Amino acid sequence: MSPRPPHTDAASQAGPAKPGQVKSITSVSNPMIKEIRALATQRKRRKEAGLFVAEGLKLITDAMQADWPIRTLVFGAEVREQPMVAQAAAKARARGATVLDVNRAVLTAITRRDNPQMVVGVFEQQWFDTERIDPARGPLWIGLDTIRDPGNLGTIIRTADAVGADGIILIGDTTDPFAVEAVRATMGSIFHMPIARMTRETFLKWRKSWPGAVIGTHLEGSIDYRKAAYTDPTLLLMGTEQSGLPEEMTAACTQLVRIPQAGQADSLNLAVATGVMLYEIRRDKLVLEG
Amino acid sequence: MSPRPPHTDAASQAGPAKPGQVKSITSVSNPMIKEIRALATQRKRRKEAGLFVAEGLKLITDAMQADWPIRTLVFGAEVREQPMVAQAAAKARARGATVLDVNRAVLTAITRRDNPQMVVGVFEQQWFDTERIDPARGPLWIGLDTIRDPGNLGTIIRTADAVGADGIILIGDTTDPFAVEAVRATMGSIFHMPIARMTRETFLKWRKSWPGAVIGTHLEGSIDYRKAAYTDPTLLLMGTEQSGLPEEMTAACTQLVRIPQAGQADSLNLAVATGVMLYEIRRDKLVLEG
Repeated sequence: MSPRPPHTDAASQAGPAKPGQVKSITSVSNPMIKEIRALATQRKRRKEAGLFVAEGLKLITDAMQADWPIRTLVFGAEVREQPMVAQAAAKARARGATVLDVNRAVLTAITRRDNPQMVVGVFEQQWFDTERIDPARGPLWIGLDTIRDPGNLGTIIRTADAVGADGIILIGDTTDPFAVEAVRATMGSIFHMPIARMTRETFLKWRKSWPGAVIGTHLEGSIDYRKAAYTDPTLLLMGTEQSGLPEEMTAACTQLVRIPQAGQADSLNLAVATGVMLYEIRRDKLVLEG
Repeated sequence: MSPRPPHTDAASQAGPAKPGQVKSITSVSNPMIKEIRALATQRKRRKEAGLFVAEGLKLITDAMQADWPIRTLVFGAEVREQPMVAQAAAKARARGATVLDVNRAVLTAITRRDNPQMVVGVFEQQWFDTERIDPARGPLWIGLDTIRDPGNLGTIIRTADAVGADGIILIGDTTDPFAVEAVRATMGSIFHMPIARMTRETFLKWRKSWPGAVIGTHLEGSIDYRKAAYTDPTLLLMGTEQSGLPEEMTAACTQLVRIPQAGQADSLNLAVATGVMLYEIRRDKLVLEG
């Protein structure tokens, strides 16, 4: 049998919950709920608080298994008895998180869906310190310049994880990897993939310390992506959805490669292009297991 | 100078527009506007009418260049003077389409965006007749079983176009390729890529007539995707985002292949997996031009 968390009195619901406590909330205007909703919808609020929201039991479970610091766990009263939910709640309480037992209206308000996720978690953002990037120990990094679409970013994080890349550097003014849509698209890989960030200026300085290849994918690249030499360490650079890499970034590359195209399409989706590149770079290293 | 279309009197706005005419509309409750909005948002309405909506000048231009039958062209009064818009309007009128000159409120209502696209077109759906699928003339087809996400579907259509595939077969209960989000994600490739549809039962019967390889991508595939033999003709089968190909579909394959994964991720995004497979299948055929 799974442990059943003790519940506080619903009458005390206006006050702040103590860490480790389970609290029932039925009002969508409760300040804690409004704060979680703000974290889910506003990048500014996420940045100020250094927190973000992950939705769904799979993501929450992945995050806790990867020891990401959890601040708040919210679950729907209707799934309270499910063993996986009770386990997640017990674990969150043991780590000092506030645990909220809420009704469907509250979950709908947080997740902005008629058919809401039944478990939602608030976690601390974790950024990889750029000084810890070590090409000797982690030879495959991906630099994403000014990427705009949270779904693309999340999908790229998922693919980077799948090929065993060592981390991602977000360069310049990119979309937020901790946006709900980005986190969802990672399918949990955000909890495993180191993510660093730099201004473009900082990147261009830092790049001088990178000892290996810097491969830029570019529509005007002259080298076929199948013919380039991918030796460790490699930094793969991908540009924006709209216009690719700008000139100051292509100038920082050791090779510009191009993925051939045969049809009427004038470009690939950025996440697809990154996937094709990553599987090419890892072509001689990935092993089929099982 | 670009031609300036003649305008009808705004007072006549309640009545139906004659084909080829330009009509001004400022009311979001105009029946023609409500119909376009319904086509943009409701699959049922699209299916009944056999029509769909494409948003944005690039898509509209691509569609008209590819000679897709246009029924209605809508543009914002504020872009009326732009040469590309005026040309599109003139072409649409010449093809007998109704042309609507509207205000921003109407465009916002149609596109459901605060920052709406300024040009919207209503086109006739075109489905490729399954009897016309000819592996001798078009050797690379892609079968998508029960695919759910319109963004993934649109991205796959775009990638299929980029590798020069010959067409896509939607199998079973899939998402609508003519949903606004799917059309947008194709970036115009929907106007170039033949799309057929079959029930799973029909597909399994039809598959017996396919003379070449039927490659299924599956987490339990035993052959490394890099080691399979891809000979013309090839039919690539991809399953759903959630659970991959069901058994009756894997049983219809000549080979089940798997894309290796190294990290914590348990699968790839479907559009990325399809992209990696298509570039592998076409590996020895695609040529870098330019």
